[in-house]
Amino acid sequence: MKLNMKSFNINYTDKELAQSIQKKIDHLNKPKGSLGRLEELALQICLIQQTLSPSLNHPCHLLLGGDHGIEREGVSVSPREVTWQQMINFTHGGGGVNMFCRQHGFKLRIVDTGVDYDLSAVEGIIDRKIARGTRNFLHEPAMSQEEFDRAIQTGVDLVDDCIAEGCQVLCVGEMGIANTSPSSIWMSLFGNIPLDECIGAGAGLDHPGIVHKREVLSQALKHYHETMEHTVENAIRYFGGYEMVTAIGAMLHGAEKGLVVLVDGFIMTACAIAAIRLYPAAQDYMIFTHCGDESGHRRMLDIVDAKPLLNLGLRLGEGTGALCAYPIIASSVHMINEMNNFDTAHITKYF
Amino acid sequence: MKLNMKSFNINYTDKELAQSIQKKIDHLNKPKGSLGRLEELALQICLIQQTLSPSLNHPCHLLLGGDHGIEREGVSVSPREVTWQQMINFTHGGGGVNMFCRQHGFKLRIVDTGVDYDLSAVEGIIDRKIARGTRNFLHEPAMSQEEFDRAIQTGVDLVDDCIAEGCQVLCVGEMGIANTSPSSIWMSLFGNIPLDECIGAGAGLDHPGIVHKREVLSQALKHYHETMEHTVENAIRYFGGYEMVTAIGAMLHGAEKGLVVLVDGFIMTACAIAAIRLYPAAQDYMIFTHCGDESGHRRMLDIVDAKPLLNLGLRLGEGTGALCAYPIIASSVHMINEMNNFDTAHITKYF
Repeated sequence: MKLNMKSFNINYTDKELAQSIQKKIDHLNKPKGSLGRLEELALQICLIQQTLSPSLNHPCHLLLGGDHGIEREGVSVSPREVTWQQMINFTHGGGGVNMFCRQHGFKLRIVDTGVDYDLSAVEGIIDRKIARGTRNFLHEPAMSQEEFDRAIQTGVDLVDDCIAEGCQVLCVGEMGIANTSPSSIWMSLFGNIPLDECIGAGAGLDHPGIVHKREVLSQALKHYHETMEHTVENAIRYFGGYEMVTAIGAMLHGAEKGLVVLVDGFIMTACAIAAIRLYPAAQDYMIFTHCGDESGHRRMLDIVDAKPLLNLGLRLGEGTGALCAYPIIASSVHMINEMNNFDTAHITKYF
Repeated sequence: MKLNMKSFNINYTDKELAQSIQKKIDHLNKPKGSLGRLEELALQICLIQQTLSPSLNHPCHLLLGGDHGIEREGVSVSPREVTWQQMINFTHGGGGVNMFCRQHGFKLRIVDTGVDYDLSAVEGIIDRKIARGTRNFLHEPAMSQEEFDRAIQTGVDLVDDCIAEGCQVLCVGEMGIANTSPSSIWMSLFGNIPLDECIGAGAGLDHPGIVHKREVLSQALKHYHETMEHTVENAIRYFGGYEMVTAIGAMLHGAEKGLVVLVDGFIMTACAIAAIRLYPAAQDYMIFTHCGDESGHRRMLDIVDAKPLLNLGLRLGEGTGALCAYPIIASSVHMINEMNNFDTAHITKYF
């Protein structure tokens, strides 16, 4: 018997209010359209919150860690122990994600969803481990249906914890050695793009390394098609990491609850696209923050016609690109809330 | 007798330290190069300050206002009174520049360098008025040599005031109806680009408006070549606004004093290029923050091979693009100061 995935109640944002919001933006004291992307962001956030005076209270960042069976195939430059080492390092405050969370006032939750190491005694890591790494999808599904369901539910629970604190902005990042591999496969499957064009250097592969990665992933994809019916849910479960499926659950629940959802680089974009394939309306709640350096990220963004805010060549992961983009999103909210308009400013109206 | 412009003592940053800085960056706990532009910014700022532990204390924003004689020729959508109206509006805190200064902790100085209105009694505006608008460069030089010198000196004095407060980061913005016109001419002269390709819509000109603007500026440029010897200094004086020449003085003195100088959109990029044509070493101190929406801005940036940080379609001026980019610059400093390295983090070193 096929189990069914938890369902989400995600509605497209109500566009009824769009005209009033746009009118407010156009009446601000500036030439029409002259704040460019900030104006588009303000419109989107107002629609998400169904208000003309939006807010971005209690931004939260989920840093989700997990290991990948496929790492055993040598598809990554870094060995899997880097996942747990970095998870511990994040608890000491010296990682990329830590600095930028501090800089922008994000509450950071470091969550073990499936790291291949016992982190249960480490203070500062939330223990939601589903298993010590996924299985190797070269030979079998990365996770069972039950594990998939737990990962989705973990994302839901984590977001509920954020919401309980008044969170209106959700950012999700990942730490998982080898997780560009499932991302590339999802990009290929969900974007109908030949697999070879979806595979890049990850965190530093050389040319022979890329050739090997292509062979491994191509074989894995072939085996998937031979043994599974292709559905979005099956593809997620067959290739995904626990941190990635948890991210999908978090994004979907964030959308369901009307949060502003920040989407980071290559891996988180893959998760966002998976979420959108399950629930197209979820995209209304997502801001694609960053076009990373991983080959193909731009093309992946094109799958859902997403225009990233930044293009700074970041490819660290952890959600760092999204965090770096956050002040621009905050600027858009300052604009619509604080900028005076042509009535109050006594300015000869510009065109 | 030809008066000589004030001279500046601007040295290229000493690259001796570059190797040590790069080594520190490469040893931070991340795959090499994975923080992209942030790493380049950190290197530049470290070189400016000649340190491995840079800081960005007391960022200051100069908002310089001035009117333009050329406005009389109908080259702008907005009438000149918008300049003084906006200057007053900025003192009330509701302009674009105000919000973003507040958001990012910039001390704002609103300076009248040549607005065509008596603002001397307005609290919150620093009175450094040189004249009530420049002369019309369709027929004669916009300013005299003495006015030019005063404008340069005004920039110097304003930066000295900032430095006295401990300022390490200088941002300059402008408010001056019609100032895209001198900017386009400078772009043409300093970039050797045909004038027609340097003229865009400004703050909203329609097609006939652009055609008219091209005719006026082309005639002005012809007259300039007929009546003046072309030098960088002459071109600045003949076409520039007081706010623009003050900006050039501020940027040059900022570079001379080792400040990090943030360059905003189309008009401020034109001023930066003018400054660089006078003192090429000044570019070492400049961060080009933003590619605006004004047609030709990208091409103007190419003149000095500048890679802007943001591309958000902003074209408001006032320095708003530079202010919006500032947190990314701050992120680069957080990175090099706060991120731990492979020794302290006990991480298996990535490639």
